Amino acid sequence: MKIKELGEFGFIDLIAKMTKPSSGVIKGIGDDCAVLPFNRSNYLLFTCDMLVEDVDFTSRDKPYLIGRKSLGVCLSDIAACGGTPCYAQVSLGLPEDTSSKRAVELYQGIISQAKQFEVKIVGGDVSRSEKLVINVSLLGLVKHKDLILRKGAREGDVIFVSGSLGGSIYGKHLTFTPRLKEVKYIVNNYKPNSMIDISDGLIQDLSHILKQSNKGAVVFQELVPVSASARKLEEALYMGEDFELLFTLGLSQARRLIKSKKNKQFTAIGSIIDKPRSLVLFNRQGKRINFNPDKMSSVKGYKHF
Amino acid sequence: MKIKELGEFGFIDLIAKMTKPSSGVIKGIGDDCAVLPFNRSNYLLFTCDMLVEDVDFTSRDKPYLIGRKSLGVCLSDIAACGGTPCYAQVSLGLPEDTSSKRAVELYQGIISQAKQFEVKIVGGDVSRSEKLVINVSLLGLVKHKDLILRKGAREGDVIFVSGSLGGSIYGKHLTFTPRLKEVKYIVNNYKPNSMIDISDGLIQDLSHILKQSNKGAVVFQELVPVSASARKLEEALYMGEDFELLFTLGLSQARRLIKSKKNKQFTAIGSIIDKPRSLVLFNRQGKRINFNPDKMSSVKGYKHF
Repeated sequence: MKIKELGEFGFIDLIAKMTKPSSGVIKGIGDDCAVLPFNRSNYLLFTCDMLVEDVDFTSRDKPYLIGRKSLGVCLSDIAACGGTPCYAQVSLGLPEDTSSKRAVELYQGIISQAKQFEVKIVGGDVSRSEKLVINVSLLGLVKHKDLILRKGAREGDVIFVSGSLGGSIYGKHLTFTPRLKEVKYIVNNYKPNSMIDISDGLIQDLSHILKQSNKGAVVFQELVPVSASARKLEEALYMGEDFELLFTLGLSQARRLIKSKKNKQFTAIGSIIDKPRSLVLFNRQGKRINFNPDKMSSVKGYKHF
Repeated sequence: MKIKELGEFGFIDLIAKMTKPSSGVIKGIGDDCAVLPFNRSNYLLFTCDMLVEDVDFTSRDKPYLIGRKSLGVCLSDIAACGGTPCYAQVSLGLPEDTSSKRAVELYQGIISQAKQFEVKIVGGDVSRSEKLVINVSLLGLVKHKDLILRKGAREGDVIFVSGSLGGSIYGKHLTFTPRLKEVKYIVNNYKPNSMIDISDGLIQDLSHILKQSNKGAVVFQELVPVSASARKLEEALYMGEDFELLFTLGLSQARRLIKSKKNKQFTAIGSIIDKPRSLVLFNRQGKRINFNPDKMSSVKGYKHF
């Protein structure tokens, strides 16, 4: 069997079974970050993301923006757990005919993103490689009380997204802003029951929340905020690379967020239901489309394999 | 200018200048691990290494051994700082025609290495990639008093290596044992002034110690323990991939280590001298070869560019 038949999430499930949960680890494989013991008031968050030429960017993209994206996707993971980023390591695989100028611009992009969010770059690795590959590993901290995982969604929760979705691969995937400020506002004023960042498409990422929370969801297609750069609604549902937040709030908190005059960036799109793992999408004609998040291959969205 | 003209270490120096030392970071770019604040008795160690197909291994190597190596090189970095490894993240870039069996064997290799040194695998990333790429990020802890950096070498220190060197690329680079047990013995019984792991060749890695310590060294070629797999002495001096420890001890401690009946694995090969950055190699004919570690391009050893 080839890895593409097993599928990206089939492979990750397999790895998670092989490694097993470890004692002393608050959360291991299967969330946006690993959550580790740190001190009396904070957990340590630990995440990594690998960007590969011709998959996550092309050789025609500006190296400065590729650099910004490589750290940005990790920052988005820290945001999705409610945390604050601290220290990064950068591994670069560079083709040997790369110009020094290009390599330096790439690194300037990483540094500018790091400065913006007060992240310290503390090390890395450089290797020769046929195609450009960048792996960023990021540490962050989160207060015990602020930690949000994928698994906490409750029946009756309202589902929210930040910003607008779709069409990111036409450009925004290189210039998006990791939602660290937004998540700070949320954890300081509300208590989300579950959260994930939308990297592989709204529906697919929601299905991770449902799977880990053992819940279902109803999503109203008409409520989904579609980005101006999306060419059709489907891109807001399935395309990925949005790096917006997807989270759930209990009913009374949800009402407060919707009413809040400060809220311009969060949109309610549906509800959590107690029908484990079924994902019902109402479209404009009132037709329902059902998904089974247990079979990730049946859930539309971005998959590497 | 191409990156290969700037050179691997020229590029790293440039990055180090761009990022600058940060307040609150005990040691950033330029050592085997980043050293970060943790608690009253320990520092947090943070390191990463990227292995690339056709550079660090070939598609003909056993995936299980490639997996073991990918974590092993990071374990060697933690050892070189005197620490104990704890948590790892694994990013995999996999060609889409990879068989599931091969991908699983690779991961089994990582897990077996992790179990051997009580490391917990807490997350990672999976991506499509033309060639196989593996990036491991590793966290560890080190007691404040046990931390060893590259920069502490003192005049009169004796230079030691663990094990034997050379010829590793003929096979041992896939089966080496990270020197965590050995470093534990050293930090529990001695107080090394500087340490590095030998990944790019004895002479080149020694030159990093000299550069950062602002010292020089005399090495006696005849004293260098040559591995049975090395085809000639030069391979023990310049080849790399040994993943042995290179460290310096003050004279009285050095005498104690040399006399110790328990010492079968550490060999004295020379001394630190107060002639900043000059590296003098006495060969069998008594001829001297001088290096200038400030010009890394003049120092023989493995370089990616």
